[in-house]
Amino acid sequence: MKHKITFMPDNVAVNVDDDTILFKAVKAAGLYVLSSCGGKGNCGKCKVVIKEGKTDTGKSRSFLSVEEAKRGYALACLTRVKSNLTVEIPPESRMQAKHKIATGANMEELIKLMQQAGGCLESRINRVYLEIDPPTIDDNIADYERLRRALDKAGFDASHLHMNYMMLIELPHVLREGNWKVTVSVFSITAVLEVLDIFPGNAIRTRYGAAVDIGTTTIVVYLVDMTNGHIIGTASTYNSQVKCGDDVITRIVYATERNGLKELHDLAVGNINTMLTELSEKNNIPPSMIDYLVVAGNTTMIHLFYGIDPQYIREEPYIPAATFFPLIRGKSVGLQVDPRAIIYSMPNVASYVGGDISAGVLVSQIHKQDQVSLFIDIGTNGEIVLGNKDWLVTAACSAGPAFEGSGIKFGMRAMEGAIEEVEINPKTYDVNFRVIGDVKPIGICGSGMIDTLAEMYLNGVIDQKGKIREEIGSKRIRRGESGLEYVLAWRVESASNKEIVITEVDLDNLIRAKAAIYAGFSTLLSQMNMTFADIDKLCIAGGFGRYIDVERAITIGMLPDLPVDKFQFLGNTSIMGAYFALLCDRLRHEAEEIARRMTYIELSVSRSFMDEYLSALFLPHTDLNAFPTVKKELEYRKKS
Amino acid sequence: MKHKITFMPDNVAVNVDDDTILFKAVKAAGLYVLSSCGGKGNCGKCKVVIKEGKTDTGKSRSFLSVEEAKRGYALACLTRVKSNLTVEIPPESRMQAKHKIATGANMEELIKLMQQAGGCLESRINRVYLEIDPPTIDDNIADYERLRRALDKAGFDASHLHMNYMMLIELPHVLREGNWKVTVSVFSITAVLEVLDIFPGNAIRTRYGAAVDIGTTTIVVYLVDMTNGHIIGTASTYNSQVKCGDDVITRIVYATERNGLKELHDLAVGNINTMLTELSEKNNIPPSMIDYLVVAGNTTMIHLFYGIDPQYIREEPYIPAATFFPLIRGKSVGLQVDPRAIIYSMPNVASYVGGDISAGVLVSQIHKQDQVSLFIDIGTNGEIVLGNKDWLVTAACSAGPAFEGSGIKFGMRAMEGAIEEVEINPKTYDVNFRVIGDVKPIGICGSGMIDTLAEMYLNGVIDQKGKIREEIGSKRIRRGESGLEYVLAWRVESASNKEIVITEVDLDNLIRAKAAIYAGFSTLLSQMNMTFADIDKLCIAGGFGRYIDVERAITIGMLPDLPVDKFQFLGNTSIMGAYFALLCDRLRHEAEEIARRMTYIELSVSRSFMDEYLSALFLPHTDLNAFPTVKKELEYRKKS
Repeated sequence: MKHKITFMPDNVAVNVDDDTILFKAVKAAGLYVLSSCGGKGNCGKCKVVIKEGKTDTGKSRSFLSVEEAKRGYALACLTRVKSNLTVEIPPESRMQAKHKIATGANMEELIKLMQQAGGCLESRINRVYLEIDPPTIDDNIADYERLRRALDKAGFDASHLHMNYMMLIELPHVLREGNWKVTVSVFSITAVLEVLDIFPGNAIRTRYGAAVDIGTTTIVVYLVDMTNGHIIGTASTYNSQVKCGDDVITRIVYATERNGLKELHDLAVGNINTMLTELSEKNNIPPSMIDYLVVAGNTTMIHLFYGIDPQYIREEPYIPAATFFPLIRGKSVGLQVDPRAIIYSMPNVASYVGGDISAGVLVSQIHKQDQVSLFIDIGTNGEIVLGNKDWLVTAACSAGPAFEGSGIKFGMRAMEGAIEEVEINPKTYDVNFRVIGDVKPIGICGSGMIDTLAEMYLNGVIDQKGKIREEIGSKRIRRGESGLEYVLAWRVESASNKEIVITEVDLDNLIRAKAAIYAGFSTLLSQMNMTFADIDKLCIAGGFGRYIDVERAITIGMLPDLPVDKFQFLGNTSIMGAYFALLCDRLRHEAEEIARRMTYIELSVSRSFMDEYLSALFLPHTDLNAFPTVKKELEYRKKS
Repeated sequence: MKHKITFMPDNVAVNVDDDTILFKAVKAAGLYVLSSCGGKGNCGKCKVVIKEGKTDTGKSRSFLSVEEAKRGYALACLTRVKSNLTVEIPPESRMQAKHKIATGANMEELIKLMQQAGGCLESRINRVYLEIDPPTIDDNIADYERLRRALDKAGFDASHLHMNYMMLIELPHVLREGNWKVTVSVFSITAVLEVLDIFPGNAIRTRYGAAVDIGTTTIVVYLVDMTNGHIIGTASTYNSQVKCGDDVITRIVYATERNGLKELHDLAVGNINTMLTELSEKNNIPPSMIDYLVVAGNTTMIHLFYGIDPQYIREEPYIPAATFFPLIRGKSVGLQVDPRAIIYSMPNVASYVGGDISAGVLVSQIHKQDQVSLFIDIGTNGEIVLGNKDWLVTAACSAGPAFEGSGIKFGMRAMEGAIEEVEINPKTYDVNFRVIGDVKPIGICGSGMIDTLAEMYLNGVIDQKGKIREEIGSKRIRRGESGLEYVLAWRVESASNKEIVITEVDLDNLIRAKAAIYAGFSTLLSQMNMTFADIDKLCIAGGFGRYIDVERAITIGMLPDLPVDKFQFLGNTSIMGAYFALLCDRLRHEAEEIARRMTYIELSVSRSFMDEYLSALFLPHTDLNAFPTVKKELEYRKKS
């Protein structure tokens, strides 16, 4: 027996067997519903509303508020189809259109997104195939001038031709090797046309570039076919600089010591070379064929990548060596690409707002819209942009790497063995957790920390200040080396055979991190005489950002209490923006315009920021009225 | 008793004692009269005309034609003052105004000459002293952007600023070291403004550049104070590449073998580095302060200097890698100067007419004059330019390095121990010679060879074809390993205690060399439907050129039989032109215009050249009527 399920508001119908899990029906209809647990009944995210028809809702109710239950809410993954149904997928359960981009590897969507942003396949580096008249005794101009003439004929303005020394040395041989049929890579800086490379024969179809995102914690590389924009391969790795310090400040300090700068430079270049080599080998493309790289990263990372002393970034008045870097050659930096390759770094705005953010805004397109948006890149740092098509302000809220595990006793990055979801039983204080890779846990990652903080707070394990309430008398509460702590996983549950705990020190660090982010938002808004009510959209970017459960993040007061449909997850916008700029020179220019337009606000010297920060050192905030849904949830829990 | 000597046409008078040698009186009057022997009565060049008064003319007559004797000619160095005199210094005896420049070291004259050519002290590289606003928390733009803003304020268009990677790395430190007062070296390529260097404090007064002439045989360097054009020091050396071959062709062959190209490159760079280091040390200027070099040389030398394979220069259709080379950095080439230093090479015209010739024309200024001039640079090759302000044609006559000693049994360069002047007694066939450094001879240099050839011919030791006339029965004529030879110096006269001879093979080589030069002249003229009668000026450039005795060179048919006052000795115009271009960017542009305007004629495939060459394989020429003064001299000698 088949049942027809009609999903609203999409008005898409699908026929399924009796007793089918509704979650599968959603997928069968080609629709998406949020889920962190993949439909295992653990995360409670796949809420749908049964508008009409019969279902078996199972234990669904345990994840729902009384209010929700009354209104027909059910978890899709725990609900079985029993008749024809009309089902609404509410906004809060919808996979945001751009959510999938977060993986950074869905090429078709990326190319589409680039096109939507006005981009096209017109890179800074052009390639042209030339059939040159061979020299004769009557037409005996030099090779270089002959090439100039051929470029002129081909429609380029080669009156100010330039060519790298190494290239000039190869020129006579390549021209003859190709029997005067060659392919030339050229690019222009104002009126100067530079020949970047030259290949015998027709090499129009073999243009490769790379987009690189140098994060404080992770580095991502895309190897790109420049002729069609295809991502040939992606690779990512933890930034090996991590061993020299978790955040930009410790890295800068490290750079000023002994051989530190060179070491950090070598580590970043080494990471990128390893990935480029791996991608090249896997795809049978010599790395020397890569002649254009666009690099995005925070200002400090770019300094370290180039080996430029970042010390003045750290000292007041916080001055980087450059924000708009000149073009630098592959060889100078030590990248194993075409030695003449051009490295372009996405324009930085200030010492603590880098090219990753101009890349991010480029991807978000908030700089073109009428509506006012907040953009936040939650990585190792937290950079915020507020604005619309008329104005843009930006700030760095130095949240610190707590959510990446730094300063948290059992903190770790989001990798196998990390607790990523936590649920605390309000009665027994027992803990349910989900571990990445479905293995025994070894620690807890950012999303798990947010969950822990939210669950502990909502269930009264900690108070508004994040202090553990010993008085509730749970066996999980105990006194450890650094004061009170709460056991998340018992010895037998843990991979390392030791209890995994969260300490009051951890809690304090997490609260300070989330407070910095929220205070950043508030300060930027107050600078513009605005409130959160004026925000039409809040874009969340960054590797970590995509794993955030918005509701939980609101619960702890890290994100403002806005309707869920105002949040948009963009994924790693740094690499995406670098990819856009790599392929489309117009978008690269646009990123420069964005960086120029952004007004940087230095929060560290802002009195208002300190006030906002102190107010945000509570769960969710000193002013609970600013968090009505949290307030409601607390009231609901008190009642139940 | 004093006599008043009035010199005409200068109308300069001087009082001298009775019996004073007239040659000394000329000097005392501050005037010049030609002399190769320095006033010893050997060269017969210091002819003056006694218009009025009594003299003792001594043996003066032996150097004079009957005609001259009749008209009152006398040799100044053999004439004693016996009363008040009126003396004319005829044009043929005048030191050409520019003769002294030949040494290339008379700075005042060089600067004056540059100014006459329209030059000024506006080099391609500018230096500007900037007092930059230090950063504050409210004005916290990056160092690079701060510098850009300061340059903009100082009146530069820095909207397209560029900076070398190495420079960028130093930037933050230099700015702070100089306490935000810095001096910046900048230069422009079209709209791009490049910061070449930056110094703490005011360094406006320490700009150094170098002009370099890379000849096939010799290399000359000027170290120049760019602030006032002063030549701080000059150095010259034989090109160490000589051991790899005497002329460009053998060098090219050498370059294509094994490691030959690198070796030749290293030798040239090594020579220049040695001289730059020596000059820098002597003048207490760190070589790293030299940030601009202008290099002139023939096309092959420039290829070898840069390490660019010259092989296609030698193979038909004779194509160089470049004629207008792109700018190349000091570091790329391996010069021990500022690693960011710009190396500019004077524009080449074709494979066998190089930047030394565009430099030469620039110095000669023939490209601006109404009158038609011939320009010849007699070095290891012989390059010729014919033209005026409306047109310029050029050719290389591949004279070969015979006059530099190559292929001549006792040939040597013009250094100590070289026979530089030769006189043969028409009766006894005895030889009088003058040796550079007044030592015992070890060989014979170019001017000595010309003298020898001329004297042997005029005195009937050889016939018109250069064959030794055994029948005259001189003990100096004998049969050696390679046939007949003529003894110039006996064993006892020679430093090496062996006879110095000139062989028939030597004579043949010399005749072929001089024939190539003359045929070059004739071919260029016939291309333009002109004859020697149309030539208003014949400029002789080149290291060797300046030691040529014009009359002797006419005698052997190397130079055309034009009135002596049409000859102008310019000296080493290659280094002079490089110096002009170094100091004045307008003149550098002018040299490029010159190179563009010159039409290159490839003599090696010219039928007409072959004809002219064959006709010139006689002394002085098949057509003796083209050499009336030689014809007259021969007739005069026959009579006496």
